[in-house]
Amino acid sequence: MSKSIDETETLSPNYNHDGLIAAIAQDVKTKDILMLAWMNEEALNKTIETGEAHYWSRSRQSLWHKGATSGNIQKVHEIRIDCDQDAVLLLVEQTGESACHTGRSDCFYRRIAQGEGTGMTKLVFFRS
Amino acid sequence: MSKSIDETETLSPNYNHDGLIAAIAQDVKTKDILMLAWMNEEALNKTIETGEAHYWSRSRQSLWHKGATSGNIQKVHEIRIDCDQDAVLLLVEQTGESACHTGRSDCFYRRIAQGEGTGMTKLVFFRS
Repeated sequence: MSKSIDETETLSPNYNHDGLIAAIAQDVKTKDILMLAWMNEEALNKTIETGEAHYWSRSRQSLWHKGATSGNIQKVHEIRIDCDQDAVLLLVEQTGESACHTGRSDCFYRRIAQGEGTGMTKLVFFRS
Repeated sequence: MSKSIDETETLSPNYNHDGLIAAIAQDVKTKDILMLAWMNEEALNKTIETGEAHYWSRSRQSLWHKGATSGNIQKVHEIRIDCDQDAVLLLVEQTGESACHTGRSDCFYRRIAQGEGTGMTKLVFFRS
């Protein structure tokens, strides 16, 4: 009898209908979330094989070796997969200056806030 | 002139073609990643309004107030959004016993490993 997907030791990623799985990159030391990106099967396999994060670029529709041009390589210390195998968590050492294309250390530099007095939702930068 | 999406103060989530945005839940104290789920516009708005995490259940195709039946409510301390506004990060206080439906504290309880000797990829449980 086969085990349920949440108790199996078999890697069997649940790619979505675009052939992609969500990938969270977390700094292995600070535990800060650096970014969320996407992987297809090739990107996941390349990441496992090389120990450097590879993603699928949805905008360029191509394999993306993170940092290959910018130098901001992510060295992968561990890859975890979630209960229903539709998301992976990379524990990485971010080399170079930043994870985000804006030059910031990570992509989550704005928080959602209610504007004072107005009640309007707006974004507040907490990293410049 | 309008600011680029990665420098704007305007909340304008980039929902995918299913109307969803990825949502990472991170423990506000331990910084552990608890889970990755999905939000539609209603779920994001409910989360902002109520301060409790709401997601879109893709399996049930319905709004999912996390913990409404299990008691495992996620109290939201902060919501961050990424550079291209297609992912949100919730900093939460997980109430009840667990974030994961398996009863574990979080959903990322297996790591991808090369089997000893065989070179085969398998999953290793590091939380029982």
